[in-house]
Amino acid sequence: MYRILRILVVAIPLLAMKQDKPLRVIFFGDSITQAGVKPQGYITKAGEMLGSKGLGAQYELMGAGIGGNKVYDLYLRMDEDVLDKKPDVVFIYVGINDVWHKASSGTGTDPDKYVKFYEAIIKKLKAQNIRIILCTPSVIGERNDNSNQQDGDLNQYSKLIRDLADRNNLQLLDLRKEFQDYLSANNPENKEKGILTSDRVHLTEAGNTFVAEKMVEALLKK
Amino acid sequence: MYRILRILVVAIPLLAMKQDKPLRVIFFGDSITQAGVKPQGYITKAGEMLGSKGLGAQYELMGAGIGGNKVYDLYLRMDEDVLDKKPDVVFIYVGINDVWHKASSGTGTDPDKYVKFYEAIIKKLKAQNIRIILCTPSVIGERNDNSNQQDGDLNQYSKLIRDLADRNNLQLLDLRKEFQDYLSANNPENKEKGILTSDRVHLTEAGNTFVAEKMVEALLKK
Amino acid sequence: MYRILRILVVAIPLLAMKQDKPLRVIFFGDSITQAGVKPQGYITKAGEMLGSKGLGAQYELMGAGIGGNKVYDLYLRMDEDVLDKKPDVVFIYVGINDVWHKASSGTGTDPDKYVKFYEAIIKKLKAQNIRIILCTPSVIGERNDNSNQQDGDLNQYSKLIRDLADRNNLQLLDLRKEFQDYLSANNPENKEKGILTSDRVHLTEAGNTFVAEKMVEALLKK
Amino acid sequence: MYRILRILVVAIPLLAMKQDKPLRVIFFGDSITQAGVKPQGYITKAGEMLGSKGLGAQYELMGAGIGGNKVYDLYLRMDEDVLDKKPDVVFIYVGINDVWHKASSGTGTDPDKYVKFYEAIIKKLKAQNIRIILCTPSVIGERNDNSNQQDGDLNQYSKLIRDLADRNNLQLLDLRKEFQDYLSANNPENKEKGILTSDRVHLTEAGNTFVAEKMVEALLKK
Repeated sequence: MYRILRILVVAIPLLAMKQDKPLRVIFFGDSITQAGVKPQGYITKAGEMLGSKGLGAQYELMGAGIGGNKVYDLYLRMDEDVLDKKPDVVFIYVGINDVWHKASSGTGTDPDKYVKFYEAIIKKLKAQNIRIILCTPSVIGERNDNSNQQDGDLNQYSKLIRDLADRNNLQLLDLRKEFQDYLSANNPENKEKGILTSDRVHLTEAGNTFVAEKMVEALLKK
Repeated sequence: MYRILRILVVAIPLLAMKQDKPLRVIFFGDSITQAGVKPQGYITKAGEMLGSKGLGAQYELMGAGIGGNKVYDLYLRMDEDVLDKKPDVVFIYVGINDVWHKASSGTGTDPDKYVKFYEAIIKKLKAQNIRIILCTPSVIGERNDNSNQQDGDLNQYSKLIRDLADRNNLQLLDLRKEFQDYLSANNPENKEKGILTSDRVHLTEAGNTFVAEKMVEALLKK
Repeated sequence: MYRILRILVVAIPLLAMKQDKPLRVIFFGDSITQAGVKPQGYITKAGEMLGSKGLGAQYELMGAGIGGNKVYDLYLRMDEDVLDKKPDVVFIYVGINDVWHKASSGTGTDPDKYVKFYEAIIKKLKAQNIRIILCTPSVIGERNDNSNQQDGDLNQYSKLIRDLADRNNLQLLDLRKEFQDYLSANNPENKEKGILTSDRVHLTEAGNTFVAEKMVEALLKK
Repeated sequence: MYRILRILVVAIPLLAMKQDKPLRVIFFGDSITQAGVKPQGYITKAGEMLGSKGLGAQYELMGAGIGGNKVYDLYLRMDEDVLDKKPDVVFIYVGINDVWHKASSGTGTDPDKYVKFYEAIIKKLKAQNIRIILCTPSVIGERNDNSNQQDGDLNQYSKLIRDLADRNNLQLLDLRKEFQDYLSANNPENKEKGILTSDRVHLTEAGNTFVAEKMVEALLKK
């Protein structure tokens, strides 16, 4: 008797969990994330991957990407676009424009300011007990020998994000490292684009699939 | 009889005013404002000017300037550095670094972002019924024939600020125009620096006096 | 009798002139000049204008423009593209990329280097007794109130060219001033493009006609 | 008798050699090379190293470095500063400013232009049968994990120089690789400066010694 009861006690909350609302996951970022909700985008693909694992009902994926956004743009719009939506999990995927625009329009972000705004975003998310996953910036150029013009800066900003994850005890999705490893193995001609990106930055379908896999993996971790 | 009474009627509120707390005025800006609280700085001088007009007890002037700040830096720290201090009046004097850093380090601010963050600052100040005075960015270089490298951009950002004042029905202190008019009359050799600035940007003592006069004038207006 | 003789007296030098080789005029510059030889380009139009004045046989116009060229690119290729062609007159129309690329790709030209290479070009042309006409850089943006981002720099480089003309006792075609005067009168909405340029830099047909007129006028001067 | 003769046989070529003019070696570059002729500079040190090997009389080392120089500046002044001096060997050590000034003042050099001017320099030196040694640009920042801001670009320009050496069948001194290898082994704290450079670019005494050793080694090779 005792044993059966105990099983029931355990079983009820489990059943209850299945009836719970799905976890709301927001992808917070720039144009790469804005394109992520398109039919072949990484967020759409991530949803399909979760579905094929039978987890479709447990996650609700939402895109919150706007083209041209840098870290301070995320900070400015985070109340409306993220906090008001009450997410359970937030992926932060920002930094490419902070580096890129230094060279293209003189309007990048200094590293110390980058960290300051990133920390301000983390602080606000933490205050709501939201699970945060930090992504390092993937690539500006796909050459695999550190000879893309802004590789040095991207490497530096990636280190800053790894430090932020460390200091704040947060999950890291090291997209930059994932891309570099992939391109070392899969870009034998050392091309500047055409593997995971169409234009050195924005994702091809293969790139969207690649990012989707990493995102799902990170989401299901622990 | 009537006359005396009337004087009393007037005198009582005056006395009351003298017993009131002084108006708290915050100067919110970058390194020019950070230097403004030094002994020869424009905020110190503005205080002395008010004192010499017998208005010293009516105004409390506070500096809130940090070197290297751009409009988004002001936004990030405005709760702590401005709103928490419960000011009655706030001068916003920002924009030089937003333009300058485009050329010096590739980390300036795009005009659309400049306006967006400026508007966000205004909105927060308005919500507290704080009187706001917008200042256009003075100079990067003192040549008076629009041949300083970034004059075009400074002129454009100044127009954006004038539009912001218009749209939000706020007081404008057009420092850029004041500087240009002064330099047209007082820089006959068309020198790049040494009149109102020591290094094309930061104020000489004459520059601090000039800005102090304009600030006091704006403060006492209406 | 008298009348016929007189006609002959006049006619002989005219015949003589017609037998002379035409003056070879080279337009040496960047993409604006490269487009100048197209059917609607300013060089083509200048040729037509000369023709309609009955001067078609006296001038041979040649384009020597290459997109993206800065002053040092002209220097590098001037032996082959200009001196080897034995011109009588050379228009130098360069400077827009030297300024523009500072903001667009971080590869503009410092003003002191600009002058140095310009002087080296002048020196080589002078050594061949070639008539030289220096053009100031027209526009990067057509706003008429000095609020285009790089107006300050263009104004400064134009002053450098005016000084070069002065110091070397050379003819100046002040295109920048011509454009500014035209736009003050003909750009009432203060648009950034669409009057003389299609994209803030490259000439519309109206722009090509405008430049052609100024070039012809300069060529026929004195 | 035999012995004396033998000495004479040996002595005659030695005397002959002593009467030969020393090989004139010109170091052609930027501020690093300009500082190279100072008492602790790399050229001075290279001379001392050759002296201590008993080769002092065989080489005459000359500096031809000017601060701020980029590849096109070398081209502009090469007749006067190099060819007129009739050198036997020329080290070309240029590229740091071509990259650096992109970020610091918007006046770097595009990679295609860099190659074009470099080739023009090589062509002129080859026409005089001068032995040419191409040096890749050392560093802008000494971090050893490719996280200095402009590492990507320096790596790319170094590849361009390696290609130039290959295509023109010229000797290469791969300073960038030498610096990177040294810093991997000798910069355990991954500092940005203070090992071989004092300010991320210009050489410390250790840096001058290091470069001198590599230059001498390259000079004596083959």
